[in-house]
Amino acid sequence: MDLDTLLTSIAPLDGEAMRTADERQARLTKPPGSMGRLEALGTQLAGVAGVCPPPIPAPVAVAVFAGDHGVHAQGVTPWPQEVTVQMVANVCAGEAVVNALAGQVGADVCVVDVGVAGHLAPHDSLVSASVARGTADLSTGPAMTTDQCREALQVGADTAGRLVDRGYRLLVTGDLGLANTTASAAIVVALTGRDAAEVTGRGAGADDLMLQHKQEIVRSAVGRLAGPPEDRDGLDVLAEVGGFEHAALAGFVLAAAARRIPVLLDGVIACSAALAAVRIAPGALAYVIAGHRSQEPGASVALTAMGLDPLVDLGLRLGEGSGALLAVPIVQAAARLLHEVATFDSAGVSEG
Amino acid sequence: MDLDTLLTSIAPLDGEAMRTADERQARLTKPPGSMGRLEALGTQLAGVAGVCPPPIPAPVAVAVFAGDHGVHAQGVTPWPQEVTVQMVANVCAGEAVVNALAGQVGADVCVVDVGVAGHLAPHDSLVSASVARGTADLSTGPAMTTDQCREALQVGADTAGRLVDRGYRLLVTGDLGLANTTASAAIVVALTGRDAAEVTGRGAGADDLMLQHKQEIVRSAVGRLAGPPEDRDGLDVLAEVGGFEHAALAGFVLAAAARRIPVLLDGVIACSAALAAVRIAPGALAYVIAGHRSQEPGASVALTAMGLDPLVDLGLRLGEGSGALLAVPIVQAAARLLHEVATFDSAGVSEG
Repeated sequence: MDLDTLLTSIAPLDGEAMRTADERQARLTKPPGSMGRLEALGTQLAGVAGVCPPPIPAPVAVAVFAGDHGVHAQGVTPWPQEVTVQMVANVCAGEAVVNALAGQVGADVCVVDVGVAGHLAPHDSLVSASVARGTADLSTGPAMTTDQCREALQVGADTAGRLVDRGYRLLVTGDLGLANTTASAAIVVALTGRDAAEVTGRGAGADDLMLQHKQEIVRSAVGRLAGPPEDRDGLDVLAEVGGFEHAALAGFVLAAAARRIPVLLDGVIACSAALAAVRIAPGALAYVIAGHRSQEPGASVALTAMGLDPLVDLGLRLGEGSGALLAVPIVQAAARLLHEVATFDSAGVSEG
Repeated sequence: MDLDTLLTSIAPLDGEAMRTADERQARLTKPPGSMGRLEALGTQLAGVAGVCPPPIPAPVAVAVFAGDHGVHAQGVTPWPQEVTVQMVANVCAGEAVVNALAGQVGADVCVVDVGVAGHLAPHDSLVSASVARGTADLSTGPAMTTDQCREALQVGADTAGRLVDRGYRLLVTGDLGLANTTASAAIVVALTGRDAAEVTGRGAGADDLMLQHKQEIVRSAVGRLAGPPEDRDGLDVLAEVGGFEHAALAGFVLAAAARRIPVLLDGVIACSAALAAVRIAPGALAYVIAGHRSQEPGASVALTAMGLDPLVDLGLRLGEGSGALLAVPIVQAAARLLHEVATFDSAGVSEG
């Protein structure tokens, strides 16, 4: 589905299915409200699927979008850029954190090269969809052209579409790319107007001096964007200060919404990309579930801006999709309760 | 294993395995510390198992201890006492929340009648180990005799022992019993000295007047116990103001520790029981993992008193083992990372 068609096909959640879910939650054999946030989540899933009980969202795929960033040259991370290539190989070999956690929750891992700077060996799990070998340096000018940004969005949308066509019913965001927390912070600052110092974090291990340097780069890059933050266009922001994986993730979120499939967000890369996606199409937000609260401060700023409260909060700050994967069983549990728990009537349990 | 033998066999965690785990965490292909609380949890599991990497804690069993409470007669819950019997039948039929969540995370459910007031139909999943048909009314005198309390502790310990013998490697606490949040609050107040108003909650739906009544009952019952809270004996407190399921859960926790098996706590019933267990044998605490933060205030007070920080916080207040079951994949993930994630050396990934 091309991007414009996709944007027009994002529909609101099904209100009737959600009302039915709310009524059913109240009749299940448990005190009303006692399943806390799982009840609202189950109702959201009913609205997404347009039916109550909603299908248990499975099978699950995590799409790991990998890209490099020109701003790496400015010394915004202690890790060399070659780590992106090495980590793509590690994920393809099934030996990264994302693989272990995907194995834990029964998710399949798909890796998409949307703009890695180096050479990647072909692999069955690796989709080659490179827009360019890394973005331009966002500290000195636009990270990408508008055409490149649209191309990367389309890569993400196509990835989601392909996964849904293959039967996946819960999509999880993943990411890989050295220096990508700098681009994430810039996107969040550009779209919320919050100060770079509040939003920019240490990523994979910046020290105080490097963190200050990151913050200055973010502040300066966002300064090139015209207009007040609330009027900025999601695509313009992604192109000016984002990464290829951010644009791809935005497309991934939009396409999931267009296909009425719930999409589970990981950390700051995903949250910043989703913030851009819902700026492009606000209706997509209803299909988004926040997986976890990353330690990276920009994640919380983006989540708050979207009005999302994450399911898991365990101090993670890795990315790759790791935090979101930990939330998969919680999402599935929310749907499962509506399927499998007896009602007071059916079980012959007295009410309070 | 009888209770006294069991108490003497609780050993400290294996420090060598924990050091090896910490070193391994630092060499995995991820920024140091980036897996947040999963790293400390993996290290705890290594210490529990005495080996690194620790085995992934599976298979998993949740033991639902069911009991009734004489204090129900005082009007501390809007639900009739017959709901305990009905809910035991519902769990045995596989249609309660605990069954759905156990199914989600691959856990088996075992129900133990340790003191339900009514008649229970025999069922394959139901173990009959009733100490009495409900405790005495804790508002007017001791809830049970010391002998009854020891018998209930032994039921819990035997349940844990039997599950470990059958191969289960992660034990999850579950509970059923009308009025059991009143007994839980009383245990927590008795062992911490906190005010009844801070500790006592609404349980399955007490209104303001009923909540105040509960608080008065808790305050008055605890007032019968001699000595300062920090000097009180766990068994004395369980006998005076606890429930049969609390005593059984305390025995369950102690036996898990004695068998070097991690035990995952659910909500306020489990947390209050565990608080009594670690008063009886402080060494058991090292084997305990807090599954979730119940909305019931006594749960947080007990967790704080034990220095435990729960893994999941989703506003649940059901019991049955529901919140703890949601944490099972997180516990397993912590061990899995130490098994399956490559090191920098093995994967040829450069370090920062």
